[in-house]
Amino acid sequence: MEKPPVVILAAGEGRRLSLGKGVPKPLTKFAGLTLLERAVRMWHKFGFTKFYVVVGHAKEEVTEGAKKIAAKLGVEIIPVENNEWPMGNGTSVLAASQLIDRPFFLQMVDHVFDAKTLQEFLKKTENAEITVLAIDPRVDSVLDIEDATKVKLEGEHILDIGKSLREYDAIDMGLFFCTPEIFESLRKSREQNGGKLSDGVRWLANNRRIKAVVLSTGQWFDIDKPEILRAAEQDLFERIKKSEDGLVSKHLNRQISFRISKRLSSLLSPNPTTGIAFCVALLGALLFTSGSYLATALAGVLIQLSSILDGCDGEIARIRLEASARGAWFDTVLDRYADALISLAVTYNMWMQMRTVWVWLGGFLALFAFVGVSYIKKEFKLRTGQEVKSSVFEKLTKRDLRLFGIFVGAIAGLPYHAMLVIAFITHLWMLHFIWTEMREKFKKGQEKSF
Amino acid sequence: MEKPPVVILAAGEGRRLSLGKGVPKPLTKFAGLTLLERAVRMWHKFGFTKFYVVVGHAKEEVTEGAKKIAAKLGVEIIPVENNEWPMGNGTSVLAASQLIDRPFFLQMVDHVFDAKTLQEFLKKTENAEITVLAIDPRVDSVLDIEDATKVKLEGEHILDIGKSLREYDAIDMGLFFCTPEIFESLRKSREQNGGKLSDGVRWLANNRRIKAVVLSTGQWFDIDKPEILRAAEQDLFERIKKSEDGLVSKHLNRQISFRISKRLSSLLSPNPTTGIAFCVALLGALLFTSGSYLATALAGVLIQLSSILDGCDGEIARIRLEASARGAWFDTVLDRYADALISLAVTYNMWMQMRTVWVWLGGFLALFAFVGVSYIKKEFKLRTGQEVKSSVFEKLTKRDLRLFGIFVGAIAGLPYHAMLVIAFITHLWMLHFIWTEMREKFKKGQEKSF
Repeated sequence: MEKPPVVILAAGEGRRLSLGKGVPKPLTKFAGLTLLERAVRMWHKFGFTKFYVVVGHAKEEVTEGAKKIAAKLGVEIIPVENNEWPMGNGTSVLAASQLIDRPFFLQMVDHVFDAKTLQEFLKKTENAEITVLAIDPRVDSVLDIEDATKVKLEGEHILDIGKSLREYDAIDMGLFFCTPEIFESLRKSREQNGGKLSDGVRWLANNRRIKAVVLSTGQWFDIDKPEILRAAEQDLFERIKKSEDGLVSKHLNRQISFRISKRLSSLLSPNPTTGIAFCVALLGALLFTSGSYLATALAGVLIQLSSILDGCDGEIARIRLEASARGAWFDTVLDRYADALISLAVTYNMWMQMRTVWVWLGGFLALFAFVGVSYIKKEFKLRTGQEVKSSVFEKLTKRDLRLFGIFVGAIAGLPYHAMLVIAFITHLWMLHFIWTEMREKFKKGQEKSF
Repeated sequence: MEKPPVVILAAGEGRRLSLGKGVPKPLTKFAGLTLLERAVRMWHKFGFTKFYVVVGHAKEEVTEGAKKIAAKLGVEIIPVENNEWPMGNGTSVLAASQLIDRPFFLQMVDHVFDAKTLQEFLKKTENAEITVLAIDPRVDSVLDIEDATKVKLEGEHILDIGKSLREYDAIDMGLFFCTPEIFESLRKSREQNGGKLSDGVRWLANNRRIKAVVLSTGQWFDIDKPEILRAAEQDLFERIKKSEDGLVSKHLNRQISFRISKRLSSLLSPNPTTGIAFCVALLGALLFTSGSYLATALAGVLIQLSSILDGCDGEIARIRLEASARGAWFDTVLDRYADALISLAVTYNMWMQMRTVWVWLGGFLALFAFVGVSYIKKEFKLRTGQEVKSSVFEKLTKRDLRLFGIFVGAIAGLPYHAMLVIAFITHLWMLHFIWTEMREKFKKGQEKSF
């Protein structure tokens, strides 16, 4: 079934947000993407491919921006001009009435939703037959309550809506599912009241032709001031931390990579970031082959830097809504290449000092430990569908700790020794893991899976 | 919901099968498992845990066998004695009537079904309210049509059933879903006709209290003669060939491993077989470190032998219905350990002849290629949910070819060179694969997955 079109209201001036900097509100950057691109990407993630973007203030610039987004994402974006935009956002919806004769979704360009919010809304409007307004009952967590559009409810029925309500139950999220009835209501209410969308909503509510649905699983922000933009960005950064992070990653790397990702996210997409982290590791590996203490120590620093940067690609992907299965795969594959090169270089570093075959035996053990441990975990997940149980022992075998160990070892002038210690621990864990899982299998008797 | 119990009829003598060897029919081995254990395991795979095994001929022996199976699989098996077994298999069903007051499944112990057959039957009897008989319309493929119980049909309705029917549409598969009505029908039919189960079925059919369901996706055999047992075993072996087999595996290894698995399946379970294949590889690796031509050539032979044995564990698992996710994981993990040891040993073999650091660099490249290529493929499958596309190039990177190449190289006295060539091809494929997949990603624009 074809997805309904999405109407994005991007005609307002947003004077409070731009602070006279001259960037129109829809083209204001939020965590690396313009508000307009972020809105389009979010719907696109859920399979929507047809958009009407209503433009008014700075219409040429915004239209230009919309065209670029359409080309980049391969979606259809139809700009709709609304010269009456100063009369209220209802006029922007009306401007699209000539083009749309079926149900559609509607959002304000400056309302930023996360995927959970949109997912919940799409689910709750699946069989909707009248217009639906998304509302948030968590009124205390709204950052700019004064400017928010408030809603007074009776069950799903909207009793009143407006910015100046004294008593209210929830906040209008600026996210709608609309039947074409909304156009009729806006025409009617405009004659009687004004050009605001909320006037049309009030008219629909009086005729019981709109219902409110509560969304409460995700996060959203109405970005109308610079300080809210900053707060919302901060909130986004906090939420993309990963629970499976290793010890070093959690307590050191993430603290730094966050700050870097924040700055890089508007400049770089995830895959080049993966490439940069790999090149830094490569440079570190090269320096290990020099042999001088200074080069070795610097190599260690580069290895640790690459470990920090390794967190950035995933963070940037999530900030920019560009997370992809192949991108994540590419990241882990380059990690394995980097690990192989690092273990080769560290082994060679030792070989220069001590020309015995045992050095290479240790190198082989390390290389197999570092690639093998990832293999064993991934293959386990693939075969059994289960996650590898996390423990401190298991965390000692993760990449963040491995590279940190080599970094510390390099500073102490003993990168090979540090690598061997980590390789030894990793081998122990692998044997422990195989032993535990196979014992479990035999305890349970025949495992059912075919 | 609790699964219904399963009644297994194992009271008959099966004189034609035993050929006077003295093994009771239920304890006759078929591809490594007794017919009784195979029947219990097959139901157990689908979550059934309560069995009534009706014993008659050689009842002490069969009861003893049933107890062992119950202990081994952790299921409940209740032996039911039927001293009237020579009067017909209907008396064996009746013997269980005192113990069962709810619907149950029923099978003849000497009818061997594959998982597909049982899966289809369970699905088609999910909402059954009357007794159901499984029938097979592929009458031409039944091996011993003379002895088969034939069925004459009108839609789902059974017009007649018996061994001596002249006209028939399908074959009785000896697999039933029964309501307790079957007991009543057997009592009635016994007075009028005889003690056969088919007499009871005829009575139910006349009263329209039984329907026939056609099963046609799987394979089954009525094992009542030694030649049918052998034919059925051969059929099973043919069907466990794997489509994703590599070139050497398909044309050489499987031909041999089949013959070995056939013999080993009654002696060894899959995991010890995995261990043996690993030990043979380990022995090969050790021999490589000797340095003499004879040891090197013998090492190559052992490596190839281990590659052949590597197919046996999976085959045995499938023959014995013991395939498990953890077992398959254990197999692939040991393969990686073996590959690492082999590449280390082959590198050392070269090092003894040529003491240059380049030998070890080549060894590192080989080790990373052999473990890395598996990692890259598995991680791809895990992340994207897609299979890696098979091609001749891709098949060159598989383990069967890798070990065969080292075997041929060892015979020629050049195992290291052979290993390097294979490692080089493998690295090329990895780069090609990464390039192809990432180009695809960028061509498609943003990939949807989050």
